Amino acid sequence: MVGGVQHVETQRNHVVRSATPDVDRDALVERFIAVRRRTEELAARLTAEDQMLQSLPATSPTKWHRAHTTWFFEENVLVPSGAPYVDERFRLLFNAHDDNVGPRQPRPRRALVSRPDAQAIAAYRQQIDSRVVERLRTARALDLARVARLVELGLAHEEQHQELILTDILHAFSLSPLKPAYAPSAIVEAMTETPMERSFQRFAGGVSEIGADAGGAFVFDNERPKHHVFLEPFELGTTLVTVGEALGFIADGGYRSPSLWLSDAYDWVQANAIESPTYLRVEGGRAVVFGLEGERVAHPAEPLLFMSWYEADAIARYLGARLPTEAEWEHAAHGVSHEGHFLGGAFHPHPPSGTGVMQMFGTGWEWTSSGYEAYPGYMPFPGALGESHGKFAANERVLRGGSLFTPPGHVRPTYRAFWPPETRIQASAIRLARNVSG
Amino acid sequence: MVGGVQHVETQRNHVVRSATPDVDRDALVERFIAVRRRTEELAARLTAEDQMLQSLPATSPTKWHRAHTTWFFEENVLVPSGAPYVDERFRLLFNAHDDNVGPRQPRPRRALVSRPDAQAIAAYRQQIDSRVVERLRTARALDLARVARLVELGLAHEEQHQELILTDILHAFSLSPLKPAYAPSAIVEAMTETPMERSFQRFAGGVSEIGADAGGAFVFDNERPKHHVFLEPFELGTTLVTVGEALGFIADGGYRSPSLWLSDAYDWVQANAIESPTYLRVEGGRAVVFGLEGERVAHPAEPLLFMSWYEADAIARYLGARLPTEAEWEHAAHGVSHEGHFLGGAFHPHPPSGTGVMQMFGTGWEWTSSGYEAYPGYMPFPGALGESHGKFAANERVLRGGSLFTPPGHVRPTYRAFWPPETRIQASAIRLARNVSG
Amino acid sequence: MVGGVQHVETQRNHVVRSATPDVDRDALVERFIAVRRRTEELAARLTAEDQMLQSLPATSPTKWHRAHTTWFFEENVLVPSGAPYVDERFRLLFNAHDDNVGPRQPRPRRALVSRPDAQAIAAYRQQIDSRVVERLRTARALDLARVARLVELGLAHEEQHQELILTDILHAFSLSPLKPAYAPSAIVEAMTETPMERSFQRFAGGVSEIGADAGGAFVFDNERPKHHVFLEPFELGTTLVTVGEALGFIADGGYRSPSLWLSDAYDWVQANAIESPTYLRVEGGRAVVFGLEGERVAHPAEPLLFMSWYEADAIARYLGARLPTEAEWEHAAHGVSHEGHFLGGAFHPHPPSGTGVMQMFGTGWEWTSSGYEAYPGYMPFPGALGESHGKFAANERVLRGGSLFTPPGHVRPTYRAFWPPETRIQASAIRLARNVSG
Amino acid sequence: MVGGVQHVETQRNHVVRSATPDVDRDALVERFIAVRRRTEELAARLTAEDQMLQSLPATSPTKWHRAHTTWFFEENVLVPSGAPYVDERFRLLFNAHDDNVGPRQPRPRRALVSRPDAQAIAAYRQQIDSRVVERLRTARALDLARVARLVELGLAHEEQHQELILTDILHAFSLSPLKPAYAPSAIVEAMTETPMERSFQRFAGGVSEIGADAGGAFVFDNERPKHHVFLEPFELGTTLVTVGEALGFIADGGYRSPSLWLSDAYDWVQANAIESPTYLRVEGGRAVVFGLEGERVAHPAEPLLFMSWYEADAIARYLGARLPTEAEWEHAAHGVSHEGHFLGGAFHPHPPSGTGVMQMFGTGWEWTSSGYEAYPGYMPFPGALGESHGKFAANERVLRGGSLFTPPGHVRPTYRAFWPPETRIQASAIRLARNVSG
Repeated sequence: MVGGVQHVETQRNHVVRSATPDVDRDALVERFIAVRRRTEELAARLTAEDQMLQSLPATSPTKWHRAHTTWFFEENVLVPSGAPYVDERFRLLFNAHDDNVGPRQPRPRRALVSRPDAQAIAAYRQQIDSRVVERLRTARALDLARVARLVELGLAHEEQHQELILTDILHAFSLSPLKPAYAPSAIVEAMTETPMERSFQRFAGGVSEIGADAGGAFVFDNERPKHHVFLEPFELGTTLVTVGEALGFIADGGYRSPSLWLSDAYDWVQANAIESPTYLRVEGGRAVVFGLEGERVAHPAEPLLFMSWYEADAIARYLGARLPTEAEWEHAAHGVSHEGHFLGGAFHPHPPSGTGVMQMFGTGWEWTSSGYEAYPGYMPFPGALGESHGKFAANERVLRGGSLFTPPGHVRPTYRAFWPPETRIQASAIRLARNVSG
Repeated sequence: MVGGVQHVETQRNHVVRSATPDVDRDALVERFIAVRRRTEELAARLTAEDQMLQSLPATSPTKWHRAHTTWFFEENVLVPSGAPYVDERFRLLFNAHDDNVGPRQPRPRRALVSRPDAQAIAAYRQQIDSRVVERLRTARALDLARVARLVELGLAHEEQHQELILTDILHAFSLSPLKPAYAPSAIVEAMTETPMERSFQRFAGGVSEIGADAGGAFVFDNERPKHHVFLEPFELGTTLVTVGEALGFIADGGYRSPSLWLSDAYDWVQANAIESPTYLRVEGGRAVVFGLEGERVAHPAEPLLFMSWYEADAIARYLGARLPTEAEWEHAAHGVSHEGHFLGGAFHPHPPSGTGVMQMFGTGWEWTSSGYEAYPGYMPFPGALGESHGKFAANERVLRGGSLFTPPGHVRPTYRAFWPPETRIQASAIRLARNVSG
Repeated sequence: MVGGVQHVETQRNHVVRSATPDVDRDALVERFIAVRRRTEELAARLTAEDQMLQSLPATSPTKWHRAHTTWFFEENVLVPSGAPYVDERFRLLFNAHDDNVGPRQPRPRRALVSRPDAQAIAAYRQQIDSRVVERLRTARALDLARVARLVELGLAHEEQHQELILTDILHAFSLSPLKPAYAPSAIVEAMTETPMERSFQRFAGGVSEIGADAGGAFVFDNERPKHHVFLEPFELGTTLVTVGEALGFIADGGYRSPSLWLSDAYDWVQANAIESPTYLRVEGGRAVVFGLEGERVAHPAEPLLFMSWYEADAIARYLGARLPTEAEWEHAAHGVSHEGHFLGGAFHPHPPSGTGVMQMFGTGWEWTSSGYEAYPGYMPFPGALGESHGKFAANERVLRGGSLFTPPGHVRPTYRAFWPPETRIQASAIRLARNVSG
Repeated sequence: MVGGVQHVETQRNHVVRSATPDVDRDALVERFIAVRRRTEELAARLTAEDQMLQSLPATSPTKWHRAHTTWFFEENVLVPSGAPYVDERFRLLFNAHDDNVGPRQPRPRRALVSRPDAQAIAAYRQQIDSRVVERLRTARALDLARVARLVELGLAHEEQHQELILTDILHAFSLSPLKPAYAPSAIVEAMTETPMERSFQRFAGGVSEIGADAGGAFVFDNERPKHHVFLEPFELGTTLVTVGEALGFIADGGYRSPSLWLSDAYDWVQANAIESPTYLRVEGGRAVVFGLEGERVAHPAEPLLFMSWYEADAIARYLGARLPTEAEWEHAAHGVSHEGHFLGGAFHPHPPSGTGVMQMFGTGWEWTSSGYEAYPGYMPFPGALGESHGKFAANERVLRGGSLFTPPGHVRPTYRAFWPPETRIQASAIRLARNVSG
């Protein structure tokens, strides 16, 4: 199946047409430099050999992420205004899967690209950075608005790849017998310092407005148009499902109880001999988890992260609940502050004080029960950036809220991520929902 | 994977609890005998060897359908009131996949059951029929209500298998070099006599009521509860997509145009080298189709039948439209008479006179864009007949309206069928839908 | 993969050119009728439904064997002399895989041929039988010699399929939960009445003559030409490996001991979770075996039958020995009477009196260590019957001596059968061999 | 799949026990240093990223080869005499597949070992080199003989991996869109300067002596014992099959002619859509080949290299010949000088002057028709170095004579290499053989 970059490439195309009338040139240059630098900072913790790792067909080497995000600016911002390619062959190597731009290196073979090497990629990044900054500094007003939109898109795209750099290297390291730590850090303490009691917050239902407006700040086109849905009354758990609850599920034989699973989900469990979430194993009754900080014993009160939609659905059922629909989630999310991100390696969860729904942003991508579909009235744009319907797939589920791997400021209440239901390696989480009688 | 009997078995479990206070004993006996006889009439056109055929893991031999539907009455109606099994080993052979009833013959190996032979199955059917009739005739009032509900369920279940007998033998015959005809008939004339012009009928949208009430006539539990949805304004094509339109799609290279397909759909097209709907091939610009009546040239105005959801979605897009949601379909279907079935081998379509949405019942199961999910507030019943959530799967789409293979009287506006999106062998059809500005 | 019919078809082509100058017309007619009748007698124990069974891609339904052997005479004996086909479509259905005769029903789909039915096949057989007998009765001398050779070939071919009828139905029945018996019989007593002690008989080695002469009785072309090999001194076990020895192998963990297996053999054991020969399971320390007589407890002194070459090789190693080369086997077999066949359902093993190598013919096909290759100097004939090199495969092992399923009189010391090393369903056996110092 | 290292590891175990009474200490140290240095010279042409490449499950990264050959000396020479491991974890990472030494990194995941990095591997090599040299310098006489045997084995093992470094990087580079050249060199001229006419040299046959003596220079144990075979008269082509002959085979539709192929070979051709040897494609009637020197047009007179046994067998048949048996090859090879290796990047073929069989050593590994089996009388040694029968596989063919990738001095007339018949990436070649009437 597809995965990370499909996700990313789809998102890329879901760009919005909205007018961005007054571009703050300096602010955009500054943001451009900051986002681009952050990618290199993430990569700097890795050796040239680490940056070659591709442990699944659906993941990519760090080196490839660094080059691909750069090629994106070259192809979409620089070349259309007449700039020559730095190296024509890079199109072939670092294009993702946009058939409009010609042939490309097959995805599962990205690890076979030993040349250009890490240093050459760094040089490529610097060249493109200079040119883009130059372009932004010198564009005339009308042109600037157009270029700015493309640069904004390129930065959102790069932020998605920043999350994938972490996601993908975590998986690669998980298969190394040496179990390397990407970044031993304060994560452990942060995750466990605030055990929270869960209650359920009730929502009355009725007609609700979902999705993003045209105009305004940057959004992907799959967030649009704003439209109405009717919600029956429901309630949401105030906190995410915990590692301790997953231990209970496992100890109660949850992975061997067909009645807790959808039928294809249980086929998947059996065919793949799944016994626990992918980075969690039970040892002496405790959960040993693998993360960017290496291997450690998890606190039972930590949120459970990294599980497939199939598992999320089964665990929710085991806990007497269900997953929320994406409309329910968004309805609840409007008005919740979306701060609380993974910043500079440290994780700052929401304080447990509130009575509201907590941990909605920046902890784990929350699986919803909703299949990923275009919103009613969604119309793909013509042209290369808009060939988006081809990037929808029939069997993907929507996730909301971002994770501790998501760059700060990247998500918002209307933001829609999506992955196939068997995806195990994304930093996903489980929010419980329940029906209530009206 | 899943397919016919999952479908059926799920439906079986989706039985409704509704009180059926005043049972008309004679009418029920009569209906029981009529439905049971119809199964044998469908089988009577086939040799003992034909009845052994299983051409896909997801299909079943006719002989198995005949025995399984019989076992269903034995297991659920007779045995609970103390009757001994006719043959204990039949449980193993003719159970579908209800893990509560113990081990069973693996589905793909149903064709390996040469014994008991066709004659022995006929005898088994007669024994069970006598016992069920006896049971209905002698049950006391309170008991009768309960037994009647189970018999109603068994008959609905048997009607589903009647459709599968036709569906499955059609596929088996399609692989025979002799291309046998199940029943040369008036189908051809019926299908082609009434070319209809398509227009689009508009619906205003707003909050709409969907699903079935508790109480009243028999419904499956997946049709419940009645609930509300919000519909944006939309319009539906008054007629189904035709063979001629499919020829246009093929001639325009539709099967080689990634932009018309969802991404996993196009993967499927390429991996399976799909070039046309499964029972249709193009020869000299005309469509040669295979059906129960054998092989013949189709009229361009006939409805296109037998295609996957993937193809339905792509063809709708090619025609500048989309598939309806199941809520849109049901909204439009309320008030439409659901007559017009395949009766005794002849097909009587709705007359083209009306200005309304036509061919909604009994022509082809209409693929909707909706994933198959439980309705909000749906609660599975405890016990063997209610273990239904395990029978939902993550990747199925809802179909509505029944087909020319569906027994008369079997469907209704709230009836929900569901198959995985790659299913090609069901008598499915395409209804076009479009957004309209409010 | 290959299997039964490749075997057969290869053999068919390996026909010898030898002159058969003086044909005894009546004897040949009599033999023709007897062999043809024996096929129908084997099938007569099976229902129409049984004759539809195909449980592996490499096996075939009884009905197909009956029709295919008949088509063989039609295609090779009757049609070349101008006879019209009984039904042109039968070529498509009952041709094996001779690309010279045009397209054919794909092998794994033979069970999908429900029509013509069993009765129609019987009629087809009778028609062809009459015509062949007529042809033999009326052919003039020179013509008779040629026709007789083809008929001899057709009869040898039919005898191979007689063995396959038993082999294939045994596998199909083994998958039925009812475990039907093909023919409850005296097999059990016969197999167990004569426990024999094994000793090793020594052979001095040196240059030995292997293979068949041109001229003389019918042989397949893969038995030719006669040629020389040099044998180092060796010795052979006087009796076959027993069920009791297999129980010891299993109890000692033989299936989990990589050092006993070739590396690809052990991969195969693990990938397929093999724990015992295919028709043998251990229950309470005893071997329960499935055979044409149904399921029963085996006597430890019975010969072990039905195992792959991989298992034969490993069990021989476990017993401190190895498999013989085909040259060693043939060297030992010359001079041994090849009587002792499975006749009319009863098995008559060689008496244990002798000091020689026993059970060499008609008990189980003895796996040799030799890959199946053409003999030095082998030259394929031109024309359809001689296109034989294409029927050799790279990875097959030679078996010698015939089994209790082999028709009486079919094998001889030079006869070479061959199957891929993973073949588990042939009536194979293990003969031990050892090196000795000269 | 099997492949390179199985090959190597098998060979490792096939060590001979022969007494090596008088060890020349200085010569051995010198040879040790030279062989070890050659590995590093081969790797020095590659970047850190290149050394991570693993393009097939059966190939290995250069980095792994460098570490594994080092671990081999540590495990077998140093540790048994009490030395501590440099790093215990390296056993896990750099062990090949010797189950005696505990768990190991799964073969297809060798590319996932980013740490230790290339520099750390260099340091590891230097440490082990110092210790081995020290061990050789200080060992007392009796001990020295034993250690010397192990070091000799380790050096032969390392030479095999030197060939694999070239073989494996060639395959990895072949998949890079940049088509990098490992070493642009004089290969092209060398290969094409000496077109040779082929004749056939006749051998009378009879009893011939094959294999190696106990005692004497180092041989692998699969070369023993010396034994007799009987050869029918035969003749060998004096030169290898050429690129031009392969072009003829392709142009004549050889890859689409089932009669030229063994049946499983043709299945393989079709299943994998094979159209030419793996590193050769036809462009405008000429052969474009990829080699360590990059991509270039081949001269028609060059020997054809890099094809599977299946292809070699088919091409030989197309040319009216067959592959030799390994006994025929060895019979012919005794007395032929085995010089003419790939030395320092340049290839020096045998002069075409002679009337004898040419190009027998150091051009391409010559596929023989012989399955790889133990010689009669072969007895595996007890203990870790002797667990060899487990490393034989059922379906491998013997190759003889070494290739241009083989280190100088590594092969000899009795040397046996072996690969599965579908192996396409080894530097293999085709020698023609024919039967002659005695």
